Amino acid sequence: MKINASQGLEVHEPMQDKVVRRQWLAEELKARVVAICRAGGIPDADAGMIAEVLVTTDMRGIHSHGVVRLARYLDCIRAGGIKPAAELVVLSESANSIMASADGGLGIPASVKTMRRLLDKAEKSAISIATVNHSDHYGAAGFYAIMAADRGFVGFSMSNTCPLVAPSGGRAAAIGNNPFAYAAPGVRHRAVLFDVCMSKVAAGKLVIAAEAGKKIPTDWILTKDGKQTDDPNEIWHDAVMLPFAEHKGYGFATLVETMTGVLAMSGMLGGVHSWNTQPGRDADTGHCFMVVNPTFFGGMDAFKTRIDTMIDELKRCPTVDGVSEVLYPGELEWRREAAALAEGVELPEASAKELSRAAELVGLG
Amino acid sequence: MKINASQGLEVHEPMQDKVVRRQWLAEELKARVVAICRAGGIPDADAGMIAEVLVTTDMRGIHSHGVVRLARYLDCIRAGGIKPAAELVVLSESANSIMASADGGLGIPASVKTMRRLLDKAEKSAISIATVNHSDHYGAAGFYAIMAADRGFVGFSMSNTCPLVAPSGGRAAAIGNNPFAYAAPGVRHRAVLFDVCMSKVAAGKLVIAAEAGKKIPTDWILTKDGKQTDDPNEIWHDAVMLPFAEHKGYGFATLVETMTGVLAMSGMLGGVHSWNTQPGRDADTGHCFMVVNPTFFGGMDAFKTRIDTMIDELKRCPTVDGVSEVLYPGELEWRREAAALAEGVELPEASAKELSRAAELVGLG
Repeated sequence: MKINASQGLEVHEPMQDKVVRRQWLAEELKARVVAICRAGGIPDADAGMIAEVLVTTDMRGIHSHGVVRLARYLDCIRAGGIKPAAELVVLSESANSIMASADGGLGIPASVKTMRRLLDKAEKSAISIATVNHSDHYGAAGFYAIMAADRGFVGFSMSNTCPLVAPSGGRAAAIGNNPFAYAAPGVRHRAVLFDVCMSKVAAGKLVIAAEAGKKIPTDWILTKDGKQTDDPNEIWHDAVMLPFAEHKGYGFATLVETMTGVLAMSGMLGGVHSWNTQPGRDADTGHCFMVVNPTFFGGMDAFKTRIDTMIDELKRCPTVDGVSEVLYPGELEWRREAAALAEGVELPEASAKELSRAAELVGLG
Repeated sequence: MKINASQGLEVHEPMQDKVVRRQWLAEELKARVVAICRAGGIPDADAGMIAEVLVTTDMRGIHSHGVVRLARYLDCIRAGGIKPAAELVVLSESANSIMASADGGLGIPASVKTMRRLLDKAEKSAISIATVNHSDHYGAAGFYAIMAADRGFVGFSMSNTCPLVAPSGGRAAAIGNNPFAYAAPGVRHRAVLFDVCMSKVAAGKLVIAAEAGKKIPTDWILTKDGKQTDDPNEIWHDAVMLPFAEHKGYGFATLVETMTGVLAMSGMLGGVHSWNTQPGRDADTGHCFMVVNPTFFGGMDAFKTRIDTMIDELKRCPTVDGVSEVLYPGELEWRREAAALAEGVELPEASAKELSRAAELVGLG
């Protein structure tokens, strides 16, 4: 599978099919994202972090949170809702905690910097915690959890979002879809990675469906008037998402809001603004990260070996008819990441289109 | 509403209806539980903790985890699966962590003692963590989270269980229903309290349904042969519970298993044994508790005030037709607890029956 990344996304090579034409070598796609970010006024180091997070997320097959988001970050910068060169401010810290502010800047660099600082503290403490306030969209929650797992720790990552989900019994968007992720490292198996939002589906999946012109099941969202709909474009018109498993999704959303809005002293609930529908407005998003160090329990090696044992036992579970194997959380992501490294990063139509739009926004189109 | 608690559960007073006859004053019900525990060989202090946890849980309306469980704890003691007077062993600890063993004893006293010790550490650390291994059923997960919230902290509580739930795509019980709870204190509102298991319903609800002779929806469990059923009694015959929201319930169950089985160095997955079906066997259950101290962020007062603000905003959400108000997680529990304090503790048939059986087991019938 030959890839001609230098020609970019908009060049159709006649000998390749539609999918292959949209493939990139990971490093070349990252370089493209870095170049776009730099041209958009984002400092070099921060641009590298954004490229790493977005492209890695696409490589794991989570296209809803990959490079498809870049153009919107630039929209927000252009509209004044995000400061492209904001620096992370540490408001207070202790031996095992950081309370930081993104100072109205991009969520990804603020989160990567905070997590790096937290991981150094985590070496010396059984459990550590960091919050980031006054931030914006931070990409896929799981990325930060894996940063911890790759150092031998258990990592947790959470963020609030603008109100998108109706609480149980409610008909209006009153709480965010509030992503939550955790990761725990193994030896033979890289890590358990679990990353979910509290609505039945992620907003990004609605965006992808809308871009693809597809209809959606009627239990994913309500219109702003509280009516059922199969049109994903309602997400741009104040649609209300429904929580998973009724009160359970609502309860987990409240947990995330507690740690990211309330504890982090960031915007909470209606105080968080949509970077999608109000790009010129300060989103005031909050994040929270927690890191557990197994050294303080049975030791890091024992922990990783036991994670492998847990995974192996789960995978030995007999399957229902029509399912070939039981997967552990994250297994699909690792397979996709390995394939993307070997064969190139496939981008869906919507991602390719948004990446092109990002390039155009900064004069690299 | 007059209550004659001294006559106990089996005495029917002709002037009271069925429900009122089964009411107890909270303190008298606790005293009854303490007396039964003592007669069963459980040390006084531990008996008090068991009474507090079980009766408080009934007062909050979670009858599936209240005094209905007491007789089974005694069955396990009698059968040799639980040591009634085991002492908590601290295996290791640090400034903000405890790794403990229940030493094959009762889960409730081990968890209360661990949590008390952890809360003292939590005064001085932004986040603290404790694990308990070699334990047994610890009652309602939320009780321990509220212990933290009542001190001004955010509390988390988790436990694994014997395999009861099928992983996504699986047809066998390969992972526990693994309860998870969190609580965060307010000022006007006592606390957010969220307590769930990872199956569509708690095992206790199946027990209650079985005792009541009721049928259940066919998507709650599979038979041991992987078939649908509406008979809750299948829970006694190796039924397989299904996770909530498919892969989401499975992922959260894996998270809890990671923190309670893997990290705590306790039994994990098939290494945890059922205290219901194998009372003579060491259950080897693991627990994990985490406590976050808002003093290290915006301060405890600010945190509690912001929790109130979050709750008030959630409750202002307009409702769907047929729902009178949006509730915050835990609101129903606080209403029930207040009512139980004012009017007495109502026990359902199954709870009353099991409490009588517990008394008979120790010669107090």
